[in-house]
Amino acid sequence: MKVNQSLIDPLQAATYIVGGNAPRFVQELKNVLDQVDGNLVGDTYGSGKMIEDFQNQMAAYLGKESAVFFPSGTMAQQIALRIWCDELRLPKVAYHPLCHLEIHEQDGLKELHHIQPILLADKDRLITLDDVVQLEDNISCLLLELPQREIGGQLPAYSELEAISAYCRDKGIKLHLDGARLFEITPYYQRSVAEICALFDSVYVSFYKGIGGIAGAILAGDTAFTEKSKVWKRRHGGDLISLYPYILSSKYYFDQRIDKMGQYYEGAKELAAIMNQCEGIQTKPIVPVSNMFHVHMDYSADVISPILAQIYEETGVGLTGYLIETSDKSCSFELSIGDRYSKAPKDKLNEVFRLLEMRLKVNGN
Amino acid sequence: MKVNQSLIDPLQAATYIVGGNAPRFVQELKNVLDQVDGNLVGDTYGSGKMIEDFQNQMAAYLGKESAVFFPSGTMAQQIALRIWCDELRLPKVAYHPLCHLEIHEQDGLKELHHIQPILLADKDRLITLDDVVQLEDNISCLLLELPQREIGGQLPAYSELEAISAYCRDKGIKLHLDGARLFEITPYYQRSVAEICALFDSVYVSFYKGIGGIAGAILAGDTAFTEKSKVWKRRHGGDLISLYPYILSSKYYFDQRIDKMGQYYEGAKELAAIMNQCEGIQTKPIVPVSNMFHVHMDYSADVISPILAQIYEETGVGLTGYLIETSDKSCSFELSIGDRYSKAPKDKLNEVFRLLEMRLKVNGN
Repeated sequence: MKVNQSLIDPLQAATYIVGGNAPRFVQELKNVLDQVDGNLVGDTYGSGKMIEDFQNQMAAYLGKESAVFFPSGTMAQQIALRIWCDELRLPKVAYHPLCHLEIHEQDGLKELHHIQPILLADKDRLITLDDVVQLEDNISCLLLELPQREIGGQLPAYSELEAISAYCRDKGIKLHLDGARLFEITPYYQRSVAEICALFDSVYVSFYKGIGGIAGAILAGDTAFTEKSKVWKRRHGGDLISLYPYILSSKYYFDQRIDKMGQYYEGAKELAAIMNQCEGIQTKPIVPVSNMFHVHMDYSADVISPILAQIYEETGVGLTGYLIETSDKSCSFELSIGDRYSKAPKDKLNEVFRLLEMRLKVNGN
Repeated sequence: MKVNQSLIDPLQAATYIVGGNAPRFVQELKNVLDQVDGNLVGDTYGSGKMIEDFQNQMAAYLGKESAVFFPSGTMAQQIALRIWCDELRLPKVAYHPLCHLEIHEQDGLKELHHIQPILLADKDRLITLDDVVQLEDNISCLLLELPQREIGGQLPAYSELEAISAYCRDKGIKLHLDGARLFEITPYYQRSVAEICALFDSVYVSFYKGIGGIAGAILAGDTAFTEKSKVWKRRHGGDLISLYPYILSSKYYFDQRIDKMGQYYEGAKELAAIMNQCEGIQTKPIVPVSNMFHVHMDYSADVISPILAQIYEETGVGLTGYLIETSDKSCSFELSIGDRYSKAPKDKLNEVFRLLEMRLKVNGN
């Protein structure tokens, strides 16, 4: 996968960036600490009021018995799958071919835990109940990622999700939720986080996607599960003497943004609709089901890149810093809508795509 | 190992605490960020100027080709041993029976990496060249911890260290340094950090021991080694989107305290000498060789604890928050000297031990 990164500087120079919440500047942490009393005692190796309070708050919010704060989702999810594989004495799980564990973690699941993943479904579509029913191998755990990020953040119908959950429960298969973007899907499903989580035995959520924290994750489930996860967290080297910079920022930005997920979702639908009016541009999904979607363009990155750079400069609106070269004649990028989208004036946004369509017609063929 | 924790509150209430640098309050991070421009760009998945600058600074300071910032030493050291075991295709290492990996990491080395450790030397003494020479098993790597924390922070003679290093090099055994407290031993050895590190193939240092940062570690070696360590860092879930809270605090407190290691060492020797004048109290080592030592007392924790609590209150000086019950009639605790020691008035310190000796004579038998 070749990535054209020539738009990084033009994006940084733009007045309005349509994706995300804020640049990853240290100011994001300063904002958090400005609100915290310096005499607050930090956590120590997973103990202390601060970490326990946040874990309890998140357990309640997710509707689970217990929750543990982790430095990363990579660590939390490998550990979740390991616990279920150990419990069922079967080191085999199933997940989507574009699962984070399969493509972004340097095979940690295999290299550290010797767990064999069965890849369910084709790369370009969601896992269905049929895929699960037709599994030939016995597995300990099925991992579902909601939304499925690498295909634009797609979601199954809620009834399909319920059916998969019921089937797994019936068959004794543990169901784990990769909820990196769980908070972001509640407006589409019109279900509470706890309702969605009730379909799963274990749940991971992230605090630096829609929430926009610095880093950090929560792994939740019943207490027997989370207690085991603490042992594995120590083994992985994730039981830091203090995780409080991430805990405080997770809590701060959770409080700031958890009620904005509907706004981000509406923004994503609005922006995708504008984009889909451009010839040669199509979003995936056509109508987003969360705050995120992918943008596919029928032109090479080399053609589009200078045109976009020029448009960023003229309009002050920046769309993306990179383009993935999906073929000689096509490219794509990902957009996640956060706080920044609402600050970009609508007339300028429309102007971006009017100019883009016009210039691609002239230069793109 | 039973730990009596009844002195935690009396210690917190003391005006002068003799050990450590500062309480683990959020203020320690606020101090760091107050000195940082909010527009500074954070690191992203191990990349970016901030993390690369600090890694380069530490590589140069340690005299190694390359260095990688890790969230924890637990993660860094398991990974170092794994890399050497893979390189020599022999999953066997040797270390002290009280090595951090053996007693504090929930067997991560065995459970995640399937590496077999050979325990060298007896629990209560240092590893010698003879121990290494007489090893019957072939090993990929020998880990030495300098100073050996769990026996009071003891150090081998520098000539012994050089001999072990030469022997390992001759035999093709990789030598790894657990340098959690490496900075703290330079005053005793009268050698630079780089000179000491030159004896080792790979080195881990911590930033929250003598340096007093929030958390974080550096793993250093040649570039082939550190590049592999980045892959394993990703696998362990330690390649966080941003580690900057730990990087900034490591750098800040390194700059503040790296030149104070001599002062801490002198403080440790002074305090140990005062303690050793008390009947029934002995430090280990008798004369400290770094900023740390253990205090052994020939009385039960139940007897000593209320006496110490009373003395903390009378003098305003606090020694320890816990006592390890080493037997029915003895207990111990660890002291690491940092910034706080110099703030405790000498007359009050002497008064503590005058009172302690007197009251132990009356109550202790």
